[in-house]
Amino acid sequence: MSSFLQTERTTLKRLPARGVYDRALVYQILDEGFICHVGFAVEGRPYVIPTGYARANDKLYIHGSQASRMLRTLKSGIDVCVTVTLLDGLVLARSAFNHSMNYRSVVVFGEAVVVDEAEKLAALLAFSEHVIAGRWADVRQPTEQELKATTVLALPLEEVSAKVRSGPPIDDEDDYELSVWAGVIPLSLVAQSPVPDPRLKPAIATPRYAVDYKRLR
Amino acid sequence: MSSFLQTERTTLKRLPARGVYDRALVYQILDEGFICHVGFAVEGRPYVIPTGYARANDKLYIHGSQASRMLRTLKSGIDVCVTVTLLDGLVLARSAFNHSMNYRSVVVFGEAVVVDEAEKLAALLAFSEHVIAGRWADVRQPTEQELKATTVLALPLEEVSAKVRSGPPIDDEDDYELSVWAGVIPLSLVAQSPVPDPRLKPAIATPRYAVDYKRLR
Repeated sequence: MSSFLQTERTTLKRLPARGVYDRALVYQILDEGFICHVGFAVEGRPYVIPTGYARANDKLYIHGSQASRMLRTLKSGIDVCVTVTLLDGLVLARSAFNHSMNYRSVVVFGEAVVVDEAEKLAALLAFSEHVIAGRWADVRQPTEQELKATTVLALPLEEVSAKVRSGPPIDDEDDYELSVWAGVIPLSLVAQSPVPDPRLKPAIATPRYAVDYKRLR
Repeated sequence: MSSFLQTERTTLKRLPARGVYDRALVYQILDEGFICHVGFAVEGRPYVIPTGYARANDKLYIHGSQASRMLRTLKSGIDVCVTVTLLDGLVLARSAFNHSMNYRSVVVFGEAVVVDEAEKLAALLAFSEHVIAGRWADVRQPTEQELKATTVLALPLEEVSAKVRSGPPIDDEDDYELSVWAGVIPLSLVAQSPVPDPRLKPAIATPRYAVDYKRLR
């Protein structure tokens, strides 16, 4: 796998050491997240909308109702910025000033395009597998009507950067002598026991992918 | 507590039942999150940047280095959109089409302003308490130099809306007869055991707020 070409927009001006352009790492972050934040401007005014997404090959897909204002705005071919952020921990330093967070984030710039019918079905399968592998095979497949009511947009993964902070706090050299605890509190998104639908028919067992849900990392 | 006035930008066009304008609920969501996504446009092109934040009273604060491109851009008084999203669960329906996620999100529109020195210190205390209550009293306080190097911006919580989905899947009536498991896999951000800084002096015990870290919900 290659690296992303750095552009003016994707080059970190501050803390350039945190900038990552490696395609494999970018894809790993995208494949772990559930929610992206989609940014666009209408008449110069910014909007940031959270939504699900999936990656397949070198495209990021978002989808929603045909009636969605956001999708209708984006498919007109305007600039979009999509950001995915994973929070990995709280970084407790010896000074207030050096406190931080460990995180991995990806920022994608580009223009989204509406996908055709064949790619739409593949993208919806990718969404499903992205959220919970194995689920697609168990459920009622989309009808023609449902497919028609769904818009899927693809954003090419071309102008992309990641930013990563990991590891212990970095304190001022003098502060290491202070009697203050310092370290990292790791955070992760954890699944609890599945809650059956109140209308679930009694004979249906909880599938393994739901009982034992874990996000790969 | 009151409700936010709905404006053109904060009124949900689709699924209006998911729109929430109650100030208490908005504040609860903001107080639970760690990361906001800050959206702004430069020459019509959108940027979405993840960063920490805190709320105090009816303001949302973001901060960073004086040298930060984002903060320097925002403090020129341009429109900003700040979004906070909490993911609560995966909603598994009987059809692919009706799958969803449970979430709570808040969108704030406005213009950010630089705070003065007195408010800056109060805001930094609010950041610290927002992330981990009790920490501020234990650590080395900011020096004049550090305060000078830090920019804090305040965004008034005036033009604000929240969006919430919770509860079981909503299936098409016919689909309830299918032999497909349906329900919710709850997700939450969970803290693991704290990892001491490799340079921590051996006699320093881990403080209770780090051992037992829990995010109020």
